[in-house]
Amino acid sequence: MKLQVAIDRVDIPRAVEIIRQVAGTADVIEVGTSLTKEFGVRALGPLIEAADGTAVLGDIKTCDEGKYEFDLGFDCGFAYLTVMGSSSLGTLEVCYASAETHDGVMMIDLLECDEDRIEKISGFENAVYCLHTSIDSGATADPVGQVRAFKAKYPQIRRIAIAGGIKKDQLAGLAAEGVEITIMGSAITKADDIAAACAECKGLCG
Amino acid sequence: MKLQVAIDRVDIPRAVEIIRQVAGTADVIEVGTSLTKEFGVRALGPLIEAADGTAVLGDIKTCDEGKYEFDLGFDCGFAYLTVMGSSSLGTLEVCYASAETHDGVMMIDLLECDEDRIEKISGFENAVYCLHTSIDSGATADPVGQVRAFKAKYPQIRRIAIAGGIKKDQLAGLAAEGVEITIMGSAITKADDIAAACAECKGLCG
Repeated sequence: MKLQVAIDRVDIPRAVEIIRQVAGTADVIEVGTSLTKEFGVRALGPLIEAADGTAVLGDIKTCDEGKYEFDLGFDCGFAYLTVMGSSSLGTLEVCYASAETHDGVMMIDLLECDEDRIEKISGFENAVYCLHTSIDSGATADPVGQVRAFKAKYPQIRRIAIAGGIKKDQLAGLAAEGVEITIMGSAITKADDIAAACAECKGLCG
Repeated sequence: MKLQVAIDRVDIPRAVEIIRQVAGTADVIEVGTSLTKEFGVRALGPLIEAADGTAVLGDIKTCDEGKYEFDLGFDCGFAYLTVMGSSSLGTLEVCYASAETHDGVMMIDLLECDEDRIEKISGFENAVYCLHTSIDSGATADPVGQVRAFKAKYPQIRRIAIAGGIKKDQLAGLAAEGVEITIMGSAITKADDIAAACAECKGLCG
């Protein structure tokens, strides 16, 4: 299972410091929505450089104007970009086409998507579907059970990620369920020793 | 009826030029999502200065982390900020509280919201509810009819805005329906004479 480390609510110099400590250990480095909205996608080149070859995800949460936002993000060097599952099917389609063209990955953020919506948008074969509990709603209580129920309901979805207050002791269970990417944030980025916390979590990903 | 002029897909110097031509005529100047995502909310001060007292809306399309994004946006000088209607109720509630605290306005973008969702989020008395047809789905064919149907279905919603390919000859009808804000973009910002196009549209808003 891949480990994605999400960096949020810091300035660019601090983000660079964090990235240097997780690059090469984390599989994906997430430049969080707060960074993209505060400083802008065009200003984030130093973060991609600091990642030094580790894939970087831009959590741009596209809602509309999919081609414009995705083309821009991939042109700026991001390997993964996020689109909201609540977007129109038209938006998802143009984002997916952009990802395929750029050899990038579209991650669909399933925040607040109900079952009908997920069913409707479940046909993007190479997309990663991210189960995501809103920060404003609190963390996921049982992520392993949540993934198991999701897989049973949507067997057509092959690539699954999960985010939202995931804890160290849940990593082995998520890996056993076949989750492709688990996203962790402050559990790593707020640790006293960020590099050690990242290495420990990566070790638990199997 | 207020006229909101949306500026998108240009760089900051060009946005400043456009703003100087519509400030004082437009009631609200929208700094579009492309500007907020490309350059970042913290870099948009020059646009708010160029507006010279005309209210500026930041189309930040908040999906999560509502308090962080709204506090930041209002602190940067925006008078209006947008949140997605598809966000969790928790997100909408913290955005609304931030708007009330900052004497700002929360505009709820109803992109892709179905009837159940709109009903569920219809209780924010001072929020503006924006009927919005996705750019990726094409323009609204009949905005006046759309507003009329919306008002009949949600009489509890007092403040209505509309966006998505609105044309000059639809303005009088929208004003007659009691729409508070009509949003126009390229019809004004791509005109040969931006100031004249803005003045003409404002004249049609009644």
